[in-house]
Amino acid sequence: MPPTSLTGQHILSSDQFDRPTLEQLFALADLLRPVARGEQVTRVLEGAVMGSLFFEASTRTRLSCDAAFMRLGGSVSHSTGVAITSISKGESLADTSRVVSGYCDIVVMRHPDEQAVHEFAAATHIPVVNGGNGAGEHPTQALLDLYALSREFARLGKTIDGARIALVGDLKHGRTVHSLVRLLSLFRELTIVCVSPPELTMPAGLLELAAGRGHRVEQTDAPREGLAGADLIYATRLQTERFAGTVAPYSDDFRIDAALLAATALPDAVVMHPLPRDSRPGANDLSTDLNRDPRLAIFRQTDAGIPVRMALFASVLGVGEQIPASLRPATWYRPEYIGPDDAPFYRGHGG
Amino acid sequence: MPPTSLTGQHILSSDQFDRPTLEQLFALADLLRPVARGEQVTRVLEGAVMGSLFFEASTRTRLSCDAAFMRLGGSVSHSTGVAITSISKGESLADTSRVVSGYCDIVVMRHPDEQAVHEFAAATHIPVVNGGNGAGEHPTQALLDLYALSREFARLGKTIDGARIALVGDLKHGRTVHSLVRLLSLFRELTIVCVSPPELTMPAGLLELAAGRGHRVEQTDAPREGLAGADLIYATRLQTERFAGTVAPYSDDFRIDAALLAATALPDAVVMHPLPRDSRPGANDLSTDLNRDPRLAIFRQTDAGIPVRMALFASVLGVGEQIPASLRPATWYRPEYIGPDDAPFYRGHGG
Amino acid sequence: MPPTSLTGQHILSSDQFDRPTLEQLFALADLLRPVARGEQVTRVLEGAVMGSLFFEASTRTRLSCDAAFMRLGGSVSHSTGVAITSISKGESLADTSRVVSGYCDIVVMRHPDEQAVHEFAAATHIPVVNGGNGAGEHPTQALLDLYALSREFARLGKTIDGARIALVGDLKHGRTVHSLVRLLSLFRELTIVCVSPPELTMPAGLLELAAGRGHRVEQTDAPREGLAGADLIYATRLQTERFAGTVAPYSDDFRIDAALLAATALPDAVVMHPLPRDSRPGANDLSTDLNRDPRLAIFRQTDAGIPVRMALFASVLGVGEQIPASLRPATWYRPEYIGPDDAPFYRGHGG
Repeated sequence: MPPTSLTGQHILSSDQFDRPTLEQLFALADLLRPVARGEQVTRVLEGAVMGSLFFEASTRTRLSCDAAFMRLGGSVSHSTGVAITSISKGESLADTSRVVSGYCDIVVMRHPDEQAVHEFAAATHIPVVNGGNGAGEHPTQALLDLYALSREFARLGKTIDGARIALVGDLKHGRTVHSLVRLLSLFRELTIVCVSPPELTMPAGLLELAAGRGHRVEQTDAPREGLAGADLIYATRLQTERFAGTVAPYSDDFRIDAALLAATALPDAVVMHPLPRDSRPGANDLSTDLNRDPRLAIFRQTDAGIPVRMALFASVLGVGEQIPASLRPATWYRPEYIGPDDAPFYRGHGG
Repeated sequence: MPPTSLTGQHILSSDQFDRPTLEQLFALADLLRPVARGEQVTRVLEGAVMGSLFFEASTRTRLSCDAAFMRLGGSVSHSTGVAITSISKGESLADTSRVVSGYCDIVVMRHPDEQAVHEFAAATHIPVVNGGNGAGEHPTQALLDLYALSREFARLGKTIDGARIALVGDLKHGRTVHSLVRLLSLFRELTIVCVSPPELTMPAGLLELAAGRGHRVEQTDAPREGLAGADLIYATRLQTERFAGTVAPYSDDFRIDAALLAATALPDAVVMHPLPRDSRPGANDLSTDLNRDPRLAIFRQTDAGIPVRMALFASVLGVGEQIPASLRPATWYRPEYIGPDDAPFYRGHGG
Repeated sequence: MPPTSLTGQHILSSDQFDRPTLEQLFALADLLRPVARGEQVTRVLEGAVMGSLFFEASTRTRLSCDAAFMRLGGSVSHSTGVAITSISKGESLADTSRVVSGYCDIVVMRHPDEQAVHEFAAATHIPVVNGGNGAGEHPTQALLDLYALSREFARLGKTIDGARIALVGDLKHGRTVHSLVRLLSLFRELTIVCVSPPELTMPAGLLELAAGRGHRVEQTDAPREGLAGADLIYATRLQTERFAGTVAPYSDDFRIDAALLAATALPDAVVMHPLPRDSRPGANDLSTDLNRDPRLAIFRQTDAGIPVRMALFASVLGVGEQIPASLRPATWYRPEYIGPDDAPFYRGHGG
């Protein structure tokens, strides 16, 4: 099966991707890593304009998409804050979409209403990238997670096929882990261990999806058991903002820290987290006492967001093939990259 | 009469323009349409910086000015949201203006106080473009309206000279229709039909201006009569934000929809609207049931904002003559343009 | 003593600079003045991305840093307004810092907490520039003040060494004047006259620092005496936002206006102010009746912000030596510069 062309496509769901397409995208991301690190420059999108429409606050996704598009040579225009003035005057999303289509070459949109991005995309002829639609999906986050995971495993001589994957924490809410399960299901013979408090289990539909594709699916509320033997430990923050009232934090046994890893984890496990992690006392999110543990891949993971989003934008705008010939060395200072092959992989970062 | 040079000029009012100047500006806009559509690239303003100072919320004007300046190769810096920090500390607008003049090559400014943009412009030696000053003017909107209208008429084999123009709705408030009347008055032998509820009529001064330039001016509160025979039907949103208390929406007979057009309009009429249109039930603004009617030109109209603003910025910064030699093909994917020669002219847009 | 290389350094405090380093930086700023004025173009940072993280509102510093980085060819991505979403979800500043390091080549940060910028800088391998940390420091403002002062004095045939410097107003609060004292102390045989109301005197530590470096330090609460014979009169705004309750404005004798200068000042004095100045009636800040007095250097001073910040960014990113060969003429219109050699030095600016 050859890769699907992404040129001109909306990117709304992680369901759109098959393995050959992912592999082609990730090969392009590999090529773009020196650009992401400020070691090389490309200007293939010089003259192109991205519209960045965030109807919901964001720091990480917004800055990361900005930087990715700018490093391809393009320019970014933002809507003011989280409100769209014209919509407050009664304009339909379809009208807004058609209007913005006359300004930009591509749109990245975040909207708290799950349907909004679909409505927006249906009304425009330029590509729309879903930057997070409420409790729905966050496909670019899922892509960067999978890319980072595949590069971690490759470094360790492992493959995703056949791996034991532990997903830990609030598996009920949180679009990131849902999108990731969809992408992981494209691989073969996984064991997916869902480790969550009883009231925060993975939705049944996703468990069935994975099982239906031939993966072994396990569920437990005991992290000590669930983490044992896992090749990937994927921790998640408690999505408190999606609960109606106040919510109790994770119990102590859900805190993934040095002690828990010493008791359960493989020496070559990979520990990931979509970030932000909640570092407040008592939150029991992924512990900072792992900051110098080489298994902790959370910053290599977030770094992967730039090359993956660059590869996605380049593919959607049909300039992927122009990348190799376009690369030239950057001439500004760039500190030694603190990246995938370093352990400990960052400096000066208190643990 | 030769065109007036716009180089170095502030653009504060539609009164600044005469016909030769408009024609020269619109010829440059024609040349820039492929750039606006992402089919060609120019970098004549590479290195130039625009200051975008919006003291009042905006989506459309802000994004459109951004995109236009960026597509010329320039960079844009925004003030944070609608507040200017230094002004809250007691700084005069004149001081702010002089300070920003040391940062930028050009400023676009929106301010709710009609006088502010004039005060700002008086204190700076760089060009200032009025992006809307309260109930005053919005000259770049008027320019794009006139440009879009002239290109629609040209396509239909008509001219603005001698045309029958129906302006419909809230003609009392709304700077857009006021600025448009000023520009239309530069043409010859128009019939301008003002169609509004009795309490929302066009200001007398503008009626006198048009009449004084030899145009025929009519007034009616009956859309069924006013739209008959019109070459242009220019609908406007009820400017509810400019009323003191609550305000009743347009009555049903003011809703411009398929039924009204079937009963009154020419087969080659052009229907325009400055947008946003209020699509909420009962608003009786321009109806979405016209979305597939080829006479509806509202999106061709908004698309015109990019080439017109590019032409304006290029002229004000004196690089208009460098444009032709600067154009090169864009190499990224661009969907087939859904534009002026298409009917229905957009896809996937629910009606 | 040779200059210290700034390449890869954080810029957190004015204490980091010695005289040879300042002189090298200012020589680069001289070279970049035509770029700052839109007369020349350089693109040495094409492809580089600055993260602009303002956790506190700002207009002047934010726009000025944007413009400086853009005029070097770089792109700027901003966090949304003053809040950082991820931090509200419990993310530590160290995590935020490490994440942003994977997106950008350099960060400019303003934060109301004095320690935050230090915490942020400790967690990243890319350079961080302090854009103002609460009541702490504002090193780029101090650098531009000193650069502007040195160029004013050079024009007048004076040197900073041996000069009589009157600092006037709220010397207790306000990081600008504190940072300036630190930089001025690097020079020789100054007389520093601190002119303030008794409750707003310069902190003792700074007086001791200056005295310890061999400067003569005087204090007075009488502007009529303090300004006499001064080569530099550096006025400051009352930092009302740093007082707990309401605060009385400066008394009339603290208003620096034409009458006071006529009674006290040298004919070749230089009058500076970090801006914004409070022009509200009764504020008794630096008076607008001096607007046409050639001794008033406040706008030449603010203009200096662009070349100084360009020089700083270029130095920190190690491209300073590439600047001379990179310069090319700008081709867009630029009004005659209203700058250092003009008196009166600006037009159309009401006084």
